Amino acid sequence: MEFIVSKEHKTAINPKRNENFPEWYQQVIKEADMAENSPVRGCMVIKPWGYTLWENVQKELDNKFKQTGHVNAYFPLFIPLHLMEKEAKHVKGFAKECAVVTHHRLEADKKEVLKPAGKLEEPLVIRPTSETIIGEMFSKWIQSYRDLPLLINQWANIVRWEMRTRLFLRTTEFLWQEGHTAHQTEKEAWEETLTILNIYKDFAENYMAIPVLTGEKTENERFPGAVKTLCIEAMMQDRKALQSGTSHFLGQNFAKASNIQFQDRKGNLSYVWTTSWGVSTRLIGGMIMVHGDDNGMCLPPRLAPTQVVVLPIIKEESDKEKVLSYCNEVVGKLRNQQYSGNNIRVYLDTRDRNAGEKSWEWTKKGVPVILEIGPRDIKNDNVFVARRDRSRKERYSQKKDVLIDEITDVLESIQAALFDRARSFREDNTREIDDYNSFKQYFTSDKKDTSGIFGGFALSYWCGSQECENKINDELGVTIRCIPLDIKISSKGKCILCGKISTQKVVFARAY
Amino acid sequence: MEFIVSKEHKTAINPKRNENFPEWYQQVIKEADMAENSPVRGCMVIKPWGYTLWENVQKELDNKFKQTGHVNAYFPLFIPLHLMEKEAKHVKGFAKECAVVTHHRLEADKKEVLKPAGKLEEPLVIRPTSETIIGEMFSKWIQSYRDLPLLINQWANIVRWEMRTRLFLRTTEFLWQEGHTAHQTEKEAWEETLTILNIYKDFAENYMAIPVLTGEKTENERFPGAVKTLCIEAMMQDRKALQSGTSHFLGQNFAKASNIQFQDRKGNLSYVWTTSWGVSTRLIGGMIMVHGDDNGMCLPPRLAPTQVVVLPIIKEESDKEKVLSYCNEVVGKLRNQQYSGNNIRVYLDTRDRNAGEKSWEWTKKGVPVILEIGPRDIKNDNVFVARRDRSRKERYSQKKDVLIDEITDVLESIQAALFDRARSFREDNTREIDDYNSFKQYFTSDKKDTSGIFGGFALSYWCGSQECENKINDELGVTIRCIPLDIKISSKGKCILCGKISTQKVVFARAY
Repeated sequence: MEFIVSKEHKTAINPKRNENFPEWYQQVIKEADMAENSPVRGCMVIKPWGYTLWENVQKELDNKFKQTGHVNAYFPLFIPLHLMEKEAKHVKGFAKECAVVTHHRLEADKKEVLKPAGKLEEPLVIRPTSETIIGEMFSKWIQSYRDLPLLINQWANIVRWEMRTRLFLRTTEFLWQEGHTAHQTEKEAWEETLTILNIYKDFAENYMAIPVLTGEKTENERFPGAVKTLCIEAMMQDRKALQSGTSHFLGQNFAKASNIQFQDRKGNLSYVWTTSWGVSTRLIGGMIMVHGDDNGMCLPPRLAPTQVVVLPIIKEESDKEKVLSYCNEVVGKLRNQQYSGNNIRVYLDTRDRNAGEKSWEWTKKGVPVILEIGPRDIKNDNVFVARRDRSRKERYSQKKDVLIDEITDVLESIQAALFDRARSFREDNTREIDDYNSFKQYFTSDKKDTSGIFGGFALSYWCGSQECENKINDELGVTIRCIPLDIKISSKGKCILCGKISTQKVVFARAY
Repeated sequence: MEFIVSKEHKTAINPKRNENFPEWYQQVIKEADMAENSPVRGCMVIKPWGYTLWENVQKELDNKFKQTGHVNAYFPLFIPLHLMEKEAKHVKGFAKECAVVTHHRLEADKKEVLKPAGKLEEPLVIRPTSETIIGEMFSKWIQSYRDLPLLINQWANIVRWEMRTRLFLRTTEFLWQEGHTAHQTEKEAWEETLTILNIYKDFAENYMAIPVLTGEKTENERFPGAVKTLCIEAMMQDRKALQSGTSHFLGQNFAKASNIQFQDRKGNLSYVWTTSWGVSTRLIGGMIMVHGDDNGMCLPPRLAPTQVVVLPIIKEESDKEKVLSYCNEVVGKLRNQQYSGNNIRVYLDTRDRNAGEKSWEWTKKGVPVILEIGPRDIKNDNVFVARRDRSRKERYSQKKDVLIDEITDVLESIQAALFDRARSFREDNTREIDDYNSFKQYFTSDKKDTSGIFGGFALSYWCGSQECENKINDELGVTIRCIPLDIKISSKGKCILCGKISTQKVVFARAY
């Protein structure tokens, strides 16, 4: 399968995807005006176009969390060091990337240079995640089975001091939601872990139009302190994997660390079972790398900040009134139509700029539908339609009333097209491989383009040992993305590296 | 005017407002389960009932900002020290309360004790407000008049290291929105400052049901770095003032500090004119202190997380099915009604607890309408209605269908009653005072109750000197809350302290 690249013009993004994928990614973000680096090392500024996309992500996910009984709350940004230390694996996992507050004011020294002053007795860690501080509160809130289940979510900023950062994908500060729940039984906590995984999968596929595999992480990739980490994994257009959301079954590890106990109906005291789960602004990076093309961003209609842009084409001043009045009529009627539970988001672009420039700007920003309307269109009761999922050559004239009636179908058809295209791409780049030579060749020399990335997803048997997992990673830079939940393996075979008998096929890939 | 205190029972909150207002405030928050202190000094946890109220505040304000052309974005939590220092008054104003990040990891020492490690070359201040970091970005984004106006808002967490903290009113970390805008002309920036002030006033009065005075701050109370600070000020039930929102006209101060210049239509380079403005989770404290009574919180219906609670009264197991089915019918029909642009938020409380206990719980949480429904009500096609703005003695039976038809009116009537009550209270406790003896008496011995607070708002002439302002504050602990915009002063008089001729009456009060 080939991605559509229009041949009638130079592409709007330079370089193209298959020339230099990482640089293409940066350029798409820049040209779509979604985010940029800030003067603060590793921290980005999310610009309005990127932030509105995140608001739409938040709104839809938040609905799904609330529909399944979760409520939002807010916990402190700071975690006292002694709380972080309560769960040994947890603090070990995050110690290397913690921003630490040590002072609480600034004071001028003799040379009038401002210096940190007011040293804190105990350093405060800026939350890299909130299990420990939330656990501390849960231990106060939970007394009896009547307080359970406790189903809390938080929308917040998080800091992890990453050495190599990339806009949206890995930044020192990022925005996310983190769910934290406590349950009476292991079974109930496990069901919650799966419920959330399914919400994430549903959201990824039906809103972001990104097909995902669901599976379990190996110990190497597990959340520090978790018993099991489930995940959704997506394939980007450079055929690398992006972990797009995780749902952790924490067993009683954090309950024991934070002493979260409840009295059951019989009066016995037990530790609760907890889960935690999160997705972040990384999802936006995923949408760019799955849907973007050589002309820029390509937004899934359900989440697009603007779904339809109307561009008046005015060449003579004398046409202005007529064109604008016709455009306003179209805009008004479109805004009254519903799509995905909301009124359609339409923008009438009357800015004093060249129409071609404006059309390219919205193309690069990824707006699903652009309608150009000039005197000739009006004469024929038409609008001129550009679908962002298709080549510019396929733009077409449509009767105004038909387009207005059909707009919901057009948006849904774009949504479906993006998903189908991404799924085909993933299928075309996923292989079942049963011998290590082919495996190695797949990931090193089976080169499809000049982007420098080889292979894609490999489905292969794995014996379950960390040794084999690490060796493969050392040799090829390929990791186990997950032990899939939704791919049925009926037979057994030999571990791709050591040859031991295994009934477990896992997904190998290079990853972000 | 007296606040309604039911005499048929002990009040649910102990102490009462007029016994110990500060302690009453803490108890209302506790009993309504809105927030609590965390293990982190000065930082609170906002619990679901308090956070949902904040979400409703956010939703309504966000709509108003968007309707007036603002867009949301997100800027870094961290501000490098050198950026903070660019505006001299600004950094001086915030230096004493800045949390400072100095290290980026944790490392075990020889005794296996974790210590901050990886010292940063330049300390990072956690934003106490974001003028400097946003100004830095604006200086890159703004080149020409075509980039103006730039109208940005951010929803974020903020840290100011306060020594004495109180839930919602003053916490080390708090949540807020901060608007930052840039304009071509002084006039346009000033109009923006006023537009936002009016949005805040409209929101306070029509959503929070809190009457506010609008005015300008004196230099003493001005935002560090601003040319003018406008504010909304509300009166709490202890007759102290709460600054509830501020809108700053920054002139070209920050534009010069951050070098934000644009080329106008003629090609000339000029500094932009900027504004900034914000409201915070402090608003929730204001709603508690204005509307709460001796039975707990009293929520303005437009913002209440739940507007109607339906309580099934089941004494015999044999009644259960009939009662629940009737309740479900009522709930379904209520949810189909619209109030203030949304479906009515109804909760059916079927939890396995005593009905009296549940009724008191919702009373303390401040739900506007509680409907109790038992077999006798059903027999008469009735529901038993408790309005939170009225005494429990005034509960009444109403025909089910009438109540369902009227529910929007009932909610709106409660909304209006809360506002009217608060406005009467403020009017009853505002005095025009023209001589210092009466002024002093008003604020020191004109004691109305045992809460330890004297006076209220005093409207008095002021000569405009900081000297008089400071003397009054030193002697009485009373500050100028604002130079009012919406109270017309037609004559002139003598400064309340020094006797100089003045045409400026200002609002004096004790304040939070």
